[in-house]
Amino acid sequence: MPVGVGLLGCGNVGSALVSLIGKGDLKKMLEIKAIAVNDLTKKRPEFVHLDLLSNDAESVINRDDVQIVVELIGGIEPAKSLILKALKAGKSVISGNKELLANHGMELASAANEGGVDLLYEAAVAGAIPLVRLLRESLAGEEIIRVLGIVNGTTNYILTQMTEFGIDFKSALQQAQDLGYAERNPEADVEGMDAAAKASILASIAFGADVVFDDVFREGITGLESYDISYATKMGYVVKLLAIIEMVEGPGSSTGSGGSRKLSVRVHPALVSADHPLASVRGPFNAIFIEGEAAGDLMLYGKGAGGAPTASAVLGDVLDAAHNISFAASSRTLERETVAFAPINDITTRYYLALDVVDEPGVLAEVAKIFGVNKVSISSMEQVETNEGARLVFFTHVALEKNLQATKRDLGNLSVVKKVGSIIRILDGGQE
Amino acid sequence: MPVGVGLLGCGNVGSALVSLIGKGDLKKMLEIKAIAVNDLTKKRPEFVHLDLLSNDAESVINRDDVQIVVELIGGIEPAKSLILKALKAGKSVISGNKELLANHGMELASAANEGGVDLLYEAAVAGAIPLVRLLRESLAGEEIIRVLGIVNGTTNYILTQMTEFGIDFKSALQQAQDLGYAERNPEADVEGMDAAAKASILASIAFGADVVFDDVFREGITGLESYDISYATKMGYVVKLLAIIEMVEGPGSSTGSGGSRKLSVRVHPALVSADHPLASVRGPFNAIFIEGEAAGDLMLYGKGAGGAPTASAVLGDVLDAAHNISFAASSRTLERETVAFAPINDITTRYYLALDVVDEPGVLAEVAKIFGVNKVSISSMEQVETNEGARLVFFTHVALEKNLQATKRDLGNLSVVKKVGSIIRILDGGQE
Repeated sequence: MPVGVGLLGCGNVGSALVSLIGKGDLKKMLEIKAIAVNDLTKKRPEFVHLDLLSNDAESVINRDDVQIVVELIGGIEPAKSLILKALKAGKSVISGNKELLANHGMELASAANEGGVDLLYEAAVAGAIPLVRLLRESLAGEEIIRVLGIVNGTTNYILTQMTEFGIDFKSALQQAQDLGYAERNPEADVEGMDAAAKASILASIAFGADVVFDDVFREGITGLESYDISYATKMGYVVKLLAIIEMVEGPGSSTGSGGSRKLSVRVHPALVSADHPLASVRGPFNAIFIEGEAAGDLMLYGKGAGGAPTASAVLGDVLDAAHNISFAASSRTLERETVAFAPINDITTRYYLALDVVDEPGVLAEVAKIFGVNKVSISSMEQVETNEGARLVFFTHVALEKNLQATKRDLGNLSVVKKVGSIIRILDGGQE
Repeated sequence: MPVGVGLLGCGNVGSALVSLIGKGDLKKMLEIKAIAVNDLTKKRPEFVHLDLLSNDAESVINRDDVQIVVELIGGIEPAKSLILKALKAGKSVISGNKELLANHGMELASAANEGGVDLLYEAAVAGAIPLVRLLRESLAGEEIIRVLGIVNGTTNYILTQMTEFGIDFKSALQQAQDLGYAERNPEADVEGMDAAAKASILASIAFGADVVFDDVFREGITGLESYDISYATKMGYVVKLLAIIEMVEGPGSSTGSGGSRKLSVRVHPALVSADHPLASVRGPFNAIFIEGEAAGDLMLYGKGAGGAPTASAVLGDVLDAAHNISFAASSRTLERETVAFAPINDITTRYYLALDVVDEPGVLAEVAKIFGVNKVSISSMEQVETNEGARLVFFTHVALEKNLQATKRDLGNLSVVKKVGSIIRILDGGQE
């Protein structure tokens, strides 16, 4: 007998899911029993049977013949209350709601554990890419060193266009909007908020840590100039908006006094070496790069958004839950511990820094002195004439973020400096 | 109480597995109860407790406290008999034995199904890359269109060196041998046999088809010349040894008479567009590119070999089996059906073809005529002077393999043709 599925929400993803479940062998395994929607009058694709629709989400959850509830409403409420009700009623829940999971993941996970039922959310982080299952199952025994993700297709499309066609941010954003890759209000994407929500979920899964949206350090891509991208290209890098999750040593450790290990969860643009696998992730695609102690480097690449890819990920979860129901089993639960977070100031990395200065003798000496007193060592420098003066582009050796920020502050106070431009962290191949 | 594990074989992978299971939380979940080895006198790492060792594999299988048997012996026998005994005794079995699975996978899968126990083999296809679980679980409801794999690290290393340093096959092979990426007898790798075994396993999982090693069409990389690689680079391609699994239409379909769909499983060098994600898979890394109906394009990238990465994949399976044992459940089984295979002659694709000819007027006309009468349409041609005459390098439009082979035969019979060089199929972006 097929397992009964109840849907909360039936937009793009929900409709695609209904279509998939109606096909071939899946009909024997799954049956959609009821669908709750907001607007009963809205036109639906013909394969969405109208007699399944109601606007009463609670009654969908409470049906005896619904064993799996798929939440596709989005947002915090009423999604959260509905999911908690379903879990407490012993139903398995599938959700792709990154906002909810990024803010209340631990509470939901506890409710699922108590009920001995599944809470699965493969679609919440990177659409069709099965990274949650990878981390939860395939790498269950693995010590994860670092997770790097391109988890926002909009910004990756914009950065790809800026890189390949030399256009500026504004034009690339306009293109992304024209193609439907970016919303009319693009803030959540270009300011890195979408990526930060996903980073917090990723961190929870990869490091068993209780990480919420507000724990994530975040910088978007709106400040990037075309010249930043071209200098990066010239030096053998591409610029990507990365979600980075890694254990870092506390600042004491470099002096041998044994700093404690803390979790760094952050989203910011980064210079990625052109021969790194993440560099080849173009356009609206997503990818997650995982560095494991035994497994080595792993990367998963795929579509991070869209009705059909997201529905495919939801379907994988629904089948997982159905399989578990048939055995009265449940998927492996993830313990979440409270961890200490590394402040961004404790990060050490190499940096790209662009500086607009007045074009007169002695400027470089003044500027270089600021780097020196702040213990930031310069690896390479290039001076370029601009219409208004000169631009200095620096690549530094590995430096402490705190020192780099002090350098930035002091540079901004120099009278010969007209503008401190982009500061972009450089992704290095593993720990240095 | 930890689940009891018995090991058959304790080489690189086995030792790495013992080391992993001895760490942290895993000790509470798993316990190695006995290890069967061939040579009791061989020196082992110190974390392999000598009192676990015996040379009696059957007694390891038959121990009451062994619930999971890990087979790391390799080869057909005695591995096959031992696995069948273990499955019949109700033990879950983990194996990374591609030779065995490529030749007797269906028999082993049936024995596992009958016993209601797990037979898991994540390590058999691409080391640490969790593609078996991806295909079996995440994409369980997905219609797979095509699977493309770089599944042999040795040949990918050789091709990467040839591409990036312009060296010939022999020098690149020597380098691979010096670095331990290639065996002293490299035949299984460079002639595509290792890749073909993996292709048959991949095909079984992705298409639910009963595919054995002998069903796989196979061409190796030994015939590739450095100039093939440079022309490819110049035209925007890289050469990769690919395992390709796809449903193709029978030859009748193009004429509208409705040819039947058949499975093509093949391993051969292919020209991959430089902006395809597979093109960026360098050195000894592996990757599997999956084109799904709903999920879209997915790629998994990682280490395909090595003790620790392989042990990591085995460990993921062991934890899976242990989880299932705790619920008296089993992993989803794969139905395997007998399918019709598409002969290589039915494939349609574009081709690269190099031809050494005498350098005199009228040669191109003679050569072009052969293409024409065999219905192979030329897309581009370049003539290069060589020491001994001239070389013609052709890129064709989409053609039927049968027609291309007829062209090759007829070209070989022309007196002006000194040598028909490499013929390399060109990977196109999805179905044309």
